[in-house]
Amino acid sequence: MKIAVLAPIAWRTPPRHYGPWEQMASNLTEELVKAGIEVTLFATGDSVTAGSLDAVIAQGYEEDKSVDAKVAECLHISNLMEKAAEFDLIHNHFDFLPLTYSKLVDKPMITTIHGFSSEKIVPVYKKYNRNTHYVSISNSDRHSELDYLATVYNGIVTAEFDFVAQPEDYLLFFGRIHPDKGTAEAIEIALKTGKRLLIAGIIQDERYYLERVEPFLGKSVEFLGAAGPEERNELLGKAAALLHPINFEEPFGLSVAEAMTCGTPVIAFNKGSMPELIIDKKTGFLVKDIEQAVQAIKMLLPGINRKKCREHAIAKFSAKKMAEDYLALYHQILNK
Amino acid sequence: MKIAVLAPIAWRTPPRHYGPWEQMASNLTEELVKAGIEVTLFATGDSVTAGSLDAVIAQGYEEDKSVDAKVAECLHISNLMEKAAEFDLIHNHFDFLPLTYSKLVDKPMITTIHGFSSEKIVPVYKKYNRNTHYVSISNSDRHSELDYLATVYNGIVTAEFDFVAQPEDYLLFFGRIHPDKGTAEAIEIALKTGKRLLIAGIIQDERYYLERVEPFLGKSVEFLGAAGPEERNELLGKAAALLHPINFEEPFGLSVAEAMTCGTPVIAFNKGSMPELIIDKKTGFLVKDIEQAVQAIKMLLPGINRKKCREHAIAKFSAKKMAEDYLALYHQILNK
Repeated sequence: MKIAVLAPIAWRTPPRHYGPWEQMASNLTEELVKAGIEVTLFATGDSVTAGSLDAVIAQGYEEDKSVDAKVAECLHISNLMEKAAEFDLIHNHFDFLPLTYSKLVDKPMITTIHGFSSEKIVPVYKKYNRNTHYVSISNSDRHSELDYLATVYNGIVTAEFDFVAQPEDYLLFFGRIHPDKGTAEAIEIALKTGKRLLIAGIIQDERYYLERVEPFLGKSVEFLGAAGPEERNELLGKAAALLHPINFEEPFGLSVAEAMTCGTPVIAFNKGSMPELIIDKKTGFLVKDIEQAVQAIKMLLPGINRKKCREHAIAKFSAKKMAEDYLALYHQILNK
Repeated sequence: MKIAVLAPIAWRTPPRHYGPWEQMASNLTEELVKAGIEVTLFATGDSVTAGSLDAVIAQGYEEDKSVDAKVAECLHISNLMEKAAEFDLIHNHFDFLPLTYSKLVDKPMITTIHGFSSEKIVPVYKKYNRNTHYVSISNSDRHSELDYLATVYNGIVTAEFDFVAQPEDYLLFFGRIHPDKGTAEAIEIALKTGKRLLIAGIIQDERYYLERVEPFLGKSVEFLGAAGPEERNELLGKAAALLHPINFEEPFGLSVAEAMTCGTPVIAFNKGSMPELIIDKKTGFLVKDIEQAVQAIKMLLPGINRKKCREHAIAKFSAKKMAEDYLALYHQILNK
């Protein structure tokens, strides 16, 4: 089976720092190669893969600002489409633009919808709904006007996250500093439990940081800035719990899966994909407000078995599991 | 012969005000229809044509800001590409994005390169040089790294421009208020000749206007703002001469062709496409600086025959001539 994986080209695949879509294209490609599948990764020229790399754009347009994003994107996509005959199936991780070439090539295409940047892009997905197979990254992220082949959860490289049996006594907030992610709510939860809180992430909303985060910083609430891969593993693993009091319908929570892989339970507001990620009272707590979060930490957190958290995460959110799920879909499509 | 004309969708075709690429797509389509050719115009839904209109986007993205330009563009282009089998030939007036679909459809494509917004888009043209036929809008606008099938000059609807045998005694600047267009140079030329100058156009460079234009306004230099079609006809026709002292390699000068159609000679700096538009000393003057322009107005302007200006413009820059030239190219491509 010959698969063409189309990655985005905002960043290298895998990304050096940020780039969740590129990360998933990489995680999938590497696992498929391990499983003996012939994969050609269409990505930036500086990308790294054990499969074959096909690139017409040297560097991601977010990393080399001399590149025109629109020019790079259409050359990148057309390069794959013009070679469609060499593959059995095209797996699109890019976004909506490749869909508009799909009726012109005679090969099946599967499209993972990593997110809707705006409701304005939905017409493209609607037009090509009969001509490609959509995969959602959680059931909660499905758009009511589209038909989907399946949900396949994001899969992480579990080897990058060590199991920690005996954590330290701090709570962790890990994510963008933004109202959506509930940094202020995390601070309130921590203060009410009397536990220390570490905050790691990029400041995406400067005003929110200055008004809702900075005034509380001190001995019991610390801000660490953005965390690289090694720091991330340590911070997530040693936390007593990850606080994830989100204020939006999050399509998937990578840090939630990563925390559980370290054995760390997650206390999340019950929105978006959270009930698909967390088993309530077993790998964390799905709560409806700050009070319930405080109660869960005080009363129930000590009863959580960290080994069960890790087992759950590895079973459901590993790159291996993701690749198996996609491989089953490839067979399903090709045997039709 | 069945032709698909792909217009841009920034504006309606033809445009209500600004929109030179849409204007040329319209002028060509209407003349081809008059010549008995079956033309389908792919343009915005509010476009007006005597041919068939095929539209998937209701309004131009510059006129309806709720439209996402990238979404509109790819749905618009793919709509044509998916119907390629219905046509003998595709004529692309859009820009570079349609090129990247061209290897996936089995029909010849001709692309009028109306301009290069940036050197960054040239790689797309280079990649598809063997797969489409490029037409330049002047010999001077040709890119050294591309091969062209022909030059076809822009063609205007000559019926919109009346011949004026006896002009008034003013000089005219007609174009964007911008250093490229030489508004300041036009003022200097007019002041040195002692003739009245009328200035019409949109202010594209506010600071340039305030520093280099506004201080000179008064009885002998007047600024009229942007001019609509009727005002344009009157202003161009009644002028003793159009001043066009450009500071850039202009690919084509629509106002130059329009002025000559009214019988009005043009005094232009000898750059870009100007020697292709103006017959020196017959339909105007190609000069190298302000002094030469002043001398030409004082000494030579009275000797210009306005009828010859109009004859030249109608012979070379009418929509009818443009359509004839393109039709010859269509036959050449299809009979290969």
